[in-house]
Amino acid sequence: MPIVKRAGLQRGVGVALWRQIADGIRQGIASGLADQDGRLPPENQLAERFGVNRHTVRAAISALAHEGVLQSEQGRGTYVRRQKRLVYPIGERTRFSAGLGGQARETRSEMTSHAREPASEPVASALGLQPGETLIRIENRGTADGMPVSRSTSWFSAERFPAIPEAYARTGSITEALIECGVEDYRRASTRVEARHADEVDTRELKLAPGAIILITHALNTDLDGQPIQYSMTRFAADRVELVVESSRSAATGDQTRPA
Amino acid sequence: MPIVKRAGLQRGVGVALWRQIADGIRQGIASGLADQDGRLPPENQLAERFGVNRHTVRAAISALAHEGVLQSEQGRGTYVRRQKRLVYPIGERTRFSAGLGGQARETRSEMTSHAREPASEPVASALGLQPGETLIRIENRGTADGMPVSRSTSWFSAERFPAIPEAYARTGSITEALIECGVEDYRRASTRVEARHADEVDTRELKLAPGAIILITHALNTDLDGQPIQYSMTRFAADRVELVVESSRSAATGDQTRPA
Repeated sequence: MPIVKRAGLQRGVGVALWRQIADGIRQGIASGLADQDGRLPPENQLAERFGVNRHTVRAAISALAHEGVLQSEQGRGTYVRRQKRLVYPIGERTRFSAGLGGQARETRSEMTSHAREPASEPVASALGLQPGETLIRIENRGTADGMPVSRSTSWFSAERFPAIPEAYARTGSITEALIECGVEDYRRASTRVEARHADEVDTRELKLAPGAIILITHALNTDLDGQPIQYSMTRFAADRVELVVESSRSAATGDQTRPA
Repeated sequence: MPIVKRAGLQRGVGVALWRQIADGIRQGIASGLADQDGRLPPENQLAERFGVNRHTVRAAISALAHEGVLQSEQGRGTYVRRQKRLVYPIGERTRFSAGLGGQARETRSEMTSHAREPASEPVASALGLQPGETLIRIENRGTADGMPVSRSTSWFSAERFPAIPEAYARTGSITEALIECGVEDYRRASTRVEARHADEVDTRELKLAPGAIILITHALNTDLDGQPIQYSMTRFAADRVELVVESSRSAATGDQTRPA
């Protein structure tokens, strides 16, 4: 499979040229491609810069517009809509809305469906249950200013949390729903992170351009006694979200809070 | 851009069919596609399963072989070479070799180059220095059993750590090199995680099939006084590595180690 270098592009590599140009434009935005008003150079200049034709540039811009990175304004040009990706913190106190707080005018976490199902081996193992025990599965979508940023599937023991879908639907918050179910507080015990290409469901539900990348977290939450209560798999649009892990104690104060 | 569904595949989506089949085979391996000996079904069965021709299946297998996931054995078939991705822990005590310990017979972290350069604005800002101050940049490659898994760029203050490239070259360990430079111990203060398509350098240095995805971490390490000492950007082959964040205290023991 031949690789032809041209302006940093790779042809015949399994990633379409317009997708590579889209990545190039996004990286360019981070390093000053747009002017002070956030306007991109015209298509013919971008085509020249990347060594491709205008059709390819247009496909790239269209994908980035679809993903919410750019917006085209009739007769005025193409503007950067969102300068930065959202930063989603992963830590002991991970909470969706609080995590994105301040980065968007409005964040929402909404249940899209729920069901009862027998525990698969990996989920049972994470939750300390037997395979086949009944679980409640909740499908959820997170949005920031109306743009979908994540979709997640969470599993809970149906025996311990029979009323959680209703409590979640009513309160709009997993934290609140867990309180109603007797879990005063909880902690993130571990998070595993992987990256894949978006599948068809991701593409549809997260309004992604096909070929986009998703970051996937597999998370285990425990109650304050250390009992596993929730196992979640969350799929983030990597174009819109970065994950950040902050140490729970800063180095400067860490030792001071440790018992002698 | 039309999307034609067929056996879960998306055509015309900016990701080549063979790359989608490669992803499909990898996911299949996780859910029992290979037999007990780790052998994949023959090409014609895979072609039928995914609804593509044998040429496409062969391109996918070739890519996965190149990435170290599969190996073809003359006259015997195609075998799964690595059942699981490596799990790389991110936490306060992140260390390359220790992190992968036990998952590979041999892990190595080696310096591929180093240089002095003026601090760019973002790196200066992270390290608490002025833009333009002299930094030492170290390029590094991490391997597990001879397979490259990561490449990283680290920046250190040249004023504080003038001898770090030599110390690293001699000891083969950033931790050891920092000790020689008077930093007894250090902590990871924060890590930011993003995902992108591999660029040409990634493809070459990490021996990736083109079109592969990389996980990128941006990390800040501080000494025990909380002074920033090292800023690093590390690129992991997402096909070979997952990142895992473990809470520094488990929920069960957390309260017990807190002062009253």
